[in-house]
Amino acid sequence: MEIEEQLAYLTRGCVDVVRASDLRARLTEAQAAGRPLVVKVGFDPTAPDLHLGHTVLIRKMKHFQDLGHTVVFLIGDFTGLIGDPTGRSKTRPPLTPEAVQANADTYRQQVFRILDPGKTIVDFNSRWLGALTGVDWVRLAARYNLAQMLERRDFRQRYEAGQPIGLHEFLYPLSQGYDSVFLKADVELGGTDQLFNLNVGRDIMPAYGLPAQIILTTPLLVGLDGVEKMSKSLGNYVGIEEPADEMVRKIVEDFRGTDEVMWTYFTLLTDWSAAQIAERQAQFAAGGVTASDLRYELARSIVSDYHGAAAAEAAVQAVKARHAARQGRAGDELPPQDVAAGQLLRKVLVDLALAGSGSDATRKIAQGGVRLNGETVNDINALVPAGTWTIQAGKKLVARVRAT
Amino acid sequence: MEIEEQLAYLTRGCVDVVRASDLRARLTEAQAAGRPLVVKVGFDPTAPDLHLGHTVLIRKMKHFQDLGHTVVFLIGDFTGLIGDPTGRSKTRPPLTPEAVQANADTYRQQVFRILDPGKTIVDFNSRWLGALTGVDWVRLAARYNLAQMLERRDFRQRYEAGQPIGLHEFLYPLSQGYDSVFLKADVELGGTDQLFNLNVGRDIMPAYGLPAQIILTTPLLVGLDGVEKMSKSLGNYVGIEEPADEMVRKIVEDFRGTDEVMWTYFTLLTDWSAAQIAERQAQFAAGGVTASDLRYELARSIVSDYHGAAAAEAAVQAVKARHAARQGRAGDELPPQDVAAGQLLRKVLVDLALAGSGSDATRKIAQGGVRLNGETVNDINALVPAGTWTIQAGKKLVARVRAT
Repeated sequence: MEIEEQLAYLTRGCVDVVRASDLRARLTEAQAAGRPLVVKVGFDPTAPDLHLGHTVLIRKMKHFQDLGHTVVFLIGDFTGLIGDPTGRSKTRPPLTPEAVQANADTYRQQVFRILDPGKTIVDFNSRWLGALTGVDWVRLAARYNLAQMLERRDFRQRYEAGQPIGLHEFLYPLSQGYDSVFLKADVELGGTDQLFNLNVGRDIMPAYGLPAQIILTTPLLVGLDGVEKMSKSLGNYVGIEEPADEMVRKIVEDFRGTDEVMWTYFTLLTDWSAAQIAERQAQFAAGGVTASDLRYELARSIVSDYHGAAAAEAAVQAVKARHAARQGRAGDELPPQDVAAGQLLRKVLVDLALAGSGSDATRKIAQGGVRLNGETVNDINALVPAGTWTIQAGKKLVARVRAT
Repeated sequence: MEIEEQLAYLTRGCVDVVRASDLRARLTEAQAAGRPLVVKVGFDPTAPDLHLGHTVLIRKMKHFQDLGHTVVFLIGDFTGLIGDPTGRSKTRPPLTPEAVQANADTYRQQVFRILDPGKTIVDFNSRWLGALTGVDWVRLAARYNLAQMLERRDFRQRYEAGQPIGLHEFLYPLSQGYDSVFLKADVELGGTDQLFNLNVGRDIMPAYGLPAQIILTTPLLVGLDGVEKMSKSLGNYVGIEEPADEMVRKIVEDFRGTDEVMWTYFTLLTDWSAAQIAERQAQFAAGGVTASDLRYELARSIVSDYHGAAAAEAAVQAVKARHAARQGRAGDELPPQDVAAGQLLRKVLVDLALAGSGSDATRKIAQGGVRLNGETVNDINALVPAGTWTIQAGKKLVARVRAT
């Protein structure tokens, strides 16, 4: 890729790029020197349970890896090991080092579904922040002044509202900035809500004799409700460890956002290029694809990332079939799958994932839960006759087959 | 001493006492427990050259020692070892540990003219502040908030004037507060300009499970000009290592303050009780003593502290004689000192400190510099005749003797 292509690829979907000219120069310089950029991204050390909202940032990390750069997945355990420094909050007890390690393992398990482990360094900032002396802290604090700190909107609002701002709260952005110094970060990524903190790193690096890091922020993902930020507590989320079926179902059926939000999902949650998205938007405008088609397509792409293409496709088909069954059309919409005629129905049920096992299939037939084109089959040894059939197993599981 | 007497003695001359009721309780509790109070006083680690302005505070330390308490003479070397943390000022390079030790020795040499070495602990705050971890600093900073910090007048003024306040400037009062925590200080003394910093210690100690220290501040001493704060750079000072003669001369001749300021000197620079001062004020008002008498009395008391009573008396006499000589009255004002008649004049010159040694006396006579009641004496073996004589040696040195 040419530098301009790289720049477009890396900044796609970002909110802030500080500054694009610096990023261009840094990419050029790194390419000439044959060195990968160090791309730093900080994560909270508390137990992670990642959803698609988090993946916007993680996918941006992957884009840097796609171009050969090194990502530092930085677990901000220094503050976690402190807990609530005022000692007043019982809900923020200090994390133990063991809990930090366990959370790091959980992170690894989840993020390596997206990131390349070979180009990812998982690190912990307590390693260097814990080693700073009092003199180091004073020198660090001397790099920043109060007015700069109060530019951060929430600080200023709280100050003006007469709400207390603990002085330790100023040390956190500084320590995050020092992470960039220690790691000699070329780039730091974060959510838009992190822009101030990322800028602290950018501001103080020159005082330590380093070029200022480049900052890219990714937007907050709107949740399935189409209104609020995706979050677990609001219930408007899709977890990346959820079963493929459930992920597809949520994306297709629970999504309440506008078409605009859906296109944002394509931008932020798939690798589709801007050109590909534009093409599909034109088709949609012309009536060539429906909103439903697009959601399935979106779901297929997203779920492939976490469960693989085959499982994604099966999940899409299963959700489509259930949807059709609920609509009373018994799967007529489904594309038929080819099976051999004359084989045991209970074996076909397993092959089509309508039953979990042979004994599950036998039980479902025995209980009268299986129908062919709406007719209940009671014989557990029934064979599938030649022809095109909609097979239902229970209320939700539906498939369409062409037996030949 | 009863507790109320102790309280009066310790708070005499102080500006702020936070709070007297706490001090009374602490004195009572310490007396009951048979333990001395820990009285902390911080000093700048840069090279000291103490003048009377500094002694106001040091004398207050001595008052605590007089009552059996332990004084911690704390050299704030932690910040000195940092120098200018922004690295911009060439005038504030970091002190070396050797320089800190050398300065401490200079302090010891000077302050032990006033303090009891047996009840003084000289300590250095780098010992514990240097050992604080990042976690400790965050916890410390969490004890204080921005609004509390901006109550400090100079911070607020600078903030409102748009002048930068480096965040490290907030760490300094915190670290001074932590000194009190580490030392478990019962009392902290300082100049009035230190009130805010002393209060930080008072504020944070309870968060560390300690009772809040009691604070006493001493006033800034007005200089010899009677207007500005005494300071070396303004030249309106009396250094405590100056020769006795020069100290007396400055106090008597250079002093330009009002009578009010002179009484303040009695309060802050001598151990005269309030009753003693009131008595002399009454005499002064009634014309029984002159302002000149009082200044000599003040000088005698102050100089005794640094050079001993005999040297102080000799210096007072010398200054009086020089003054008389300048007035052309050849020492008539001086109270005569008794000497044996018939002894060698050159010996008497040495005894009266009109000559530094026998050979100096011989030389002065040979050169025609010595006069008895205005008559030059040329015989180096001249004897002192019986009678009352004003003896002059050179232009300035004058004494009055009664030889019998």
